[in-house]
Amino acid sequence: MNSELEKEYEQALAEEPDTEKERDDEYDATLEKILKLLPEKKFVQAREVLLENNEADIAELLEDVIDEEGLDKAIILFRILPKDISVDVFSYFAIDTQVDVITAITDKEINFIMQELDFDDMIDVLEELPANIVDKILAKATKEERKQINTFLNYPEFSAGSLMTPDYISLRKSWTVHEALDHIRDQALESETIYTCYVMDQGRKLIGIISLRRLVTARESQLVGDLMDEDFVSVGVLEDQESVSELFKKYDLLAMPVVDKEDRLVGIITVDDIMDVIEEETTEDFQHMAGVAASTDEYLDMPVWKHVKSRFPWLFFLMCSYMVTGGIIARFQDSLSAVICLVAYMPMLNGTGGNSGSQAATLVIRGLATGDIDLKDALRVFWKEFRIGIIVGAALSLLNFARIVWLDKNGVGVALTVALSMLAIVVIAKCVGALLPLLAKKLKIDPALMASPFIASLTDLVSTLTYFAMATRVLGI
Amino acid sequence: MNSELEKEYEQALAEEPDTEKERDDEYDATLEKILKLLPEKKFVQAREVLLENNEADIAELLEDVIDEEGLDKAIILFRILPKDISVDVFSYFAIDTQVDVITAITDKEINFIMQELDFDDMIDVLEELPANIVDKILAKATKEERKQINTFLNYPEFSAGSLMTPDYISLRKSWTVHEALDHIRDQALESETIYTCYVMDQGRKLIGIISLRRLVTARESQLVGDLMDEDFVSVGVLEDQESVSELFKKYDLLAMPVVDKEDRLVGIITVDDIMDVIEEETTEDFQHMAGVAASTDEYLDMPVWKHVKSRFPWLFFLMCSYMVTGGIIARFQDSLSAVICLVAYMPMLNGTGGNSGSQAATLVIRGLATGDIDLKDALRVFWKEFRIGIIVGAALSLLNFARIVWLDKNGVGVALTVALSMLAIVVIAKCVGALLPLLAKKLKIDPALMASPFIASLTDLVSTLTYFAMATRVLGI
Repeated sequence: MNSELEKEYEQALAEEPDTEKERDDEYDATLEKILKLLPEKKFVQAREVLLENNEADIAELLEDVIDEEGLDKAIILFRILPKDISVDVFSYFAIDTQVDVITAITDKEINFIMQELDFDDMIDVLEELPANIVDKILAKATKEERKQINTFLNYPEFSAGSLMTPDYISLRKSWTVHEALDHIRDQALESETIYTCYVMDQGRKLIGIISLRRLVTARESQLVGDLMDEDFVSVGVLEDQESVSELFKKYDLLAMPVVDKEDRLVGIITVDDIMDVIEEETTEDFQHMAGVAASTDEYLDMPVWKHVKSRFPWLFFLMCSYMVTGGIIARFQDSLSAVICLVAYMPMLNGTGGNSGSQAATLVIRGLATGDIDLKDALRVFWKEFRIGIIVGAALSLLNFARIVWLDKNGVGVALTVALSMLAIVVIAKCVGALLPLLAKKLKIDPALMASPFIASLTDLVSTLTYFAMATRVLGI
Repeated sequence: MNSELEKEYEQALAEEPDTEKERDDEYDATLEKILKLLPEKKFVQAREVLLENNEADIAELLEDVIDEEGLDKAIILFRILPKDISVDVFSYFAIDTQVDVITAITDKEINFIMQELDFDDMIDVLEELPANIVDKILAKATKEERKQINTFLNYPEFSAGSLMTPDYISLRKSWTVHEALDHIRDQALESETIYTCYVMDQGRKLIGIISLRRLVTARESQLVGDLMDEDFVSVGVLEDQESVSELFKKYDLLAMPVVDKEDRLVGIITVDDIMDVIEEETTEDFQHMAGVAASTDEYLDMPVWKHVKSRFPWLFFLMCSYMVTGGIIARFQDSLSAVICLVAYMPMLNGTGGNSGSQAATLVIRGLATGDIDLKDALRVFWKEFRIGIIVGAALSLLNFARIVWLDKNGVGVALTVALSMLAIVVIAKCVGALLPLLAKKLKIDPALMASPFIASLTDLVSTLTYFAMATRVLGI
């Protein structure tokens, strides 16, 4: 490209301020201001400072106040916020904070919040509240409302049903664009989104969807039925949230209709909730990959005993597998003490085996999660890893052979044992590491469980066996 | 809740069809139909089968055709699609496929696609195309267009500037809602989104944003300036895409304005592109956690040599660190051969140390990525891991002591050595594993690099040192 232009832009770019840092600094200054006002009980001033921010930031500020000054002070601030703002702020709280707040405020305040909250947000809170509070809230609802709430509470966790809201815009195909827009205007306040609208027949069966964009750009006399898209994607109420989020990514959706088994529309899922699902699913993958039981609690909020409970089982299970490895070593210990220098190479062989395996496993786990790799690709994956293993293993092998002969001066026999073991271990680790997540997927276990801790202990076993087998053959011990 | 209701719903849920499987089966059947038609050169029939699907699915089907039957056959199918559909299909292709297609079709077809493509999608393709094709495309553009394209091509990868599109709706604050809606109707076709509109002053400075929802529900005579939201979030062109996606999650946004250093609006980023960013960033974390160089190539498309290149450096680096561990063992080998049974416990101690460390490290890495953990939480994290380490370590310690004394019958001295080492190793590994990602963050290195391969080799070193130190003290060797 034009080099003068390029220079000009480079200069402009260099002058760009760091907006992320600016935002962070501003936030920290606000928080500090509030934390200074609280010990002096200047709640009204603190409220003014809070109200200079938008609702999402107010929620974050209050959560930081909880961490620094305790729940009580934060609750006072929350209760003196203007009513309409407090509901929005509440909806931005983490679920734990929501439960804490609900249990600290009066029944009247609870009912106000519950009435004003979006339906799907309300269901999320109800799911986490103690039964006695839920009962109190349900007592205030009408019979109709109670039935609907109970239906939604009953959808299994992580299902499309548990994510959806019944507050959508429904249109009739016989309406004109003019009528449709009037209806949208009427319903806008109670709807989660107005940007995608749903067309149903008399039996509430979903027959088409239409975007507000399409409606706004059409002539007022056109019919909804002529404009609507009949080739839409929908999911069933029981569909897993992970596959719902895949569909959002694939089709670049803002909202997705959820239907029951008779294709009747029961709710919609919006993209903002899907962003949370993606975060949740990724966190679960990370937890499984670390050999930690999945949990939606935030790290810092989770008590020590719960951390212990989520980590101990895998650690213990893996430790037992290392005992098998130890048992093999114990049986070989006489041969080992004859050529004691072999011991010094064990951590390297085991470690490199574990690392090779976890490289392959992690990439395959991620490929399965993003849909780049499928069960039917198993053979292609195996063949790729086999070749990668041969090349990487051979390179590391040669390096070690040279080092052991010339640097460590431990003789050609030991060098050959280590080098051959290295090659075999890397190839086996790569192939096993890549195939185990695929096997897990086939068996409907989360592939992420096959990541590094599990692969590492398995490859340790394989490495040790391989090493001793090589030593017996090459050195004749 | 009402137990009769509950039963009713459980039954209804049990009858729900598996919509995910249905969709997959349908897709596979369609693909099979097409793959059967191609060898018989029945392209027109194959086109009809394709056209029964929506654009995202057509794109996926064609990519599968490339895998199964080669690029040529897929290109023929792509070229006989109706023009308007082919552009949409093209926009759903993976970037590699887009480049392959562009290099296979005529200049005339290229220019049609480039003209019809959304601006941000076009920039993405241009970035990947060989220079000679880019030059050919730019030659057809007007001088104005060329300048704009060059500006956008010049924004650094992974910056807000590289994600944005200049196709947004801009309004004036003096306009009435009626005038604004007319303007939106006019501009709708050329705009990436019409659901968020941007209000600028004479100098193109962004002074407010307003949603279509707000406009649609307002009276026609109201002024944009009175309705617009002046307390909006914007980012600079150089802001990192990761922090942009954090803001989308925090504020539940559909679109985000991008401004230059004088607060002039230069483009907007839409939520669908952010979904791709989140996927990209997560994949990068996975790659770093596996000790693999980051890459945006799909696993199966990446040639073996590139896989080797991305994996070898870390494997080699980590292997060298294991050599240090090996060196320590070599220095202790005489003491070791005196109590050879100590060797059998090494894999267990090293492995459990590695696993403990990687549990802590992975959780902290994820906490940093989601914003649950912050640099200022270092002390709290340390204190939590210390206590977890003590509890988990003590439990594993006692189990091992008992096992070594009663099952292995290796004596109290060895048992004490292993048990004390276990406690120390777990505590150290937990603390080091948790603090290293924080340190990395502080040093502006990706915390994900501190995950299991790195932690495992570091804890191996620490474990071995601890073990020998204990052995020397307890057993006096």
